[in-house]
Amino acid sequence: MKILIVGLGLIGGSYAEGLSLKGYEVYGIDKDSNAVQYALKNGFIKKSSYTKDELIQMMDVIVLAIYPQAILEFLRNNQSNFRKGQLITDVCGVKSSFVNKATLLANPAIYLSHHPMAGKEKIGIAFADYKIFKNANFLITPLSNTPIEAIKILDQFARDLEFGKISIMSPVRHDEMIGFTSQLTHAIAVSLVNSDHDKDTVNFIGDSYRDLTRIAMINEKLWSELFLENKNALLNHIEAFEEQLNILKNALKLDDQEKLNELFKTSTQIRKKMEKCEN
Amino acid sequence: MKILIVGLGLIGGSYAEGLSLKGYEVYGIDKDSNAVQYALKNGFIKKSSYTKDELIQMMDVIVLAIYPQAILEFLRNNQSNFRKGQLITDVCGVKSSFVNKATLLANPAIYLSHHPMAGKEKIGIAFADYKIFKNANFLITPLSNTPIEAIKILDQFARDLEFGKISIMSPVRHDEMIGFTSQLTHAIAVSLVNSDHDKDTVNFIGDSYRDLTRIAMINEKLWSELFLENKNALLNHIEAFEEQLNILKNALKLDDQEKLNELFKTSTQIRKKMEKCEN
Repeated sequence: MKILIVGLGLIGGSYAEGLSLKGYEVYGIDKDSNAVQYALKNGFIKKSSYTKDELIQMMDVIVLAIYPQAILEFLRNNQSNFRKGQLITDVCGVKSSFVNKATLLANPAIYLSHHPMAGKEKIGIAFADYKIFKNANFLITPLSNTPIEAIKILDQFARDLEFGKISIMSPVRHDEMIGFTSQLTHAIAVSLVNSDHDKDTVNFIGDSYRDLTRIAMINEKLWSELFLENKNALLNHIEAFEEQLNILKNALKLDDQEKLNELFKTSTQIRKKMEKCEN
Repeated sequence: MKILIVGLGLIGGSYAEGLSLKGYEVYGIDKDSNAVQYALKNGFIKKSSYTKDELIQMMDVIVLAIYPQAILEFLRNNQSNFRKGQLITDVCGVKSSFVNKATLLANPAIYLSHHPMAGKEKIGIAFADYKIFKNANFLITPLSNTPIEAIKILDQFARDLEFGKISIMSPVRHDEMIGFTSQLTHAIAVSLVNSDHDKDTVNFIGDSYRDLTRIAMINEKLWSELFLENKNALLNHIEAFEEQLNILKNALKLDDQEKLNELFKTSTQIRKKMEKCEN
């Protein structure tokens, strides 16, 4: 099976590495020729003398590992090269805002979006490592008329890249949940770090602060797009979180130790259920 | 040097283990006889036939590894056994609310509080492991008239237990900073988990959610005491955090991508400076 990775960054590079190792015929393109050179040198992608147009026409699967706002642009610019029987997918962290348009633009190829829930606080192919996918969640977001064959191909990719749980859901459901588990967590980490007004904080931190703020090191261009594309879901989640923080704050103000105990017991109970899924 | 660990839980047990390994003569007491048996069986503490009163009288250093509200009670109940030349210390995560009283009650022994910034989301000596202290921050909180000799003893403990940076500051400064790096982070993690109203969340989580919520598994009795004893500092930090989250929320509402970029760049810059201190 021939695969083209469009965008050889951290995720695209890791896909190229992992899929090559599993025996797929992997090609890659990127605006940055250094990224392509790195991928060639490390055996992540095959050398070829085909033009970009030829490559796109030849592929069985095209994986768009580029920023959300670049996806539709790529589809528009390369529409004439897509053909029947091809699958085009993307690894983007939001879905609803573009998948319908993407599906129209990809035609006659099939468009099926997915989301590999793994990453690092680093940018670029130099940090690529397909082992980041090990046991991670893999989300596939078909539309109601997406052919089952397309889902099967992505399901196989997930298995080959050693993801853990593979789930299938609608793009809307995806964005609602990801607004909570991914975008809200980033919003919180950023706000926590930005509320730090002391020069000596580093001498007072333990693992809790380190763990909560690691993702405050954030690729601003990518994440501002993700936030805005999923604005409404994220705003709802921020408000639900604020409500909970407010309940805790009021218990504190009222010296209500019993209420604090209750809040802590609830959070412990909810979070413990997720422990069995830890790596 | 003879050391008595009062309270053989996760931290007390880890102190006993580490200090024994470094050649100190370590004894331990706990209300739970199973904890004492565990400590004896694993060589964390020495066997002795002394009474509790005798043990307290014999010691050079007494480490109180018990809950904040139990510290003053212990000091009151055992006051008649303290003697000149002894050092009494505690490992508590708050300081200002009790150190002045503790200093009076410990007399003629010297009282000097400290805070080992390490832990686990587990309770009890079965999880004790002095390696959790490796490279962690160690905070010593003397009063203005604390003898330098007492500080030197705790400084040596920190080195023997392989802590990283050792800092000295007033109890008030300690509580202000810990309200931010420790209590606020726990308040956030708890509120985040408690704002989760979906049964399927576990299928949508990545490392960011895992890292941000691990400390939502919390010892409710200990932490409700810590929160309440440091109420004012914590409330101020919660409000500063809420302000920052509000700035982010407004940028999102206004589709202000430039402002989001700016917030993300700032948080990245602040958090990156802490990276060099990572283990």
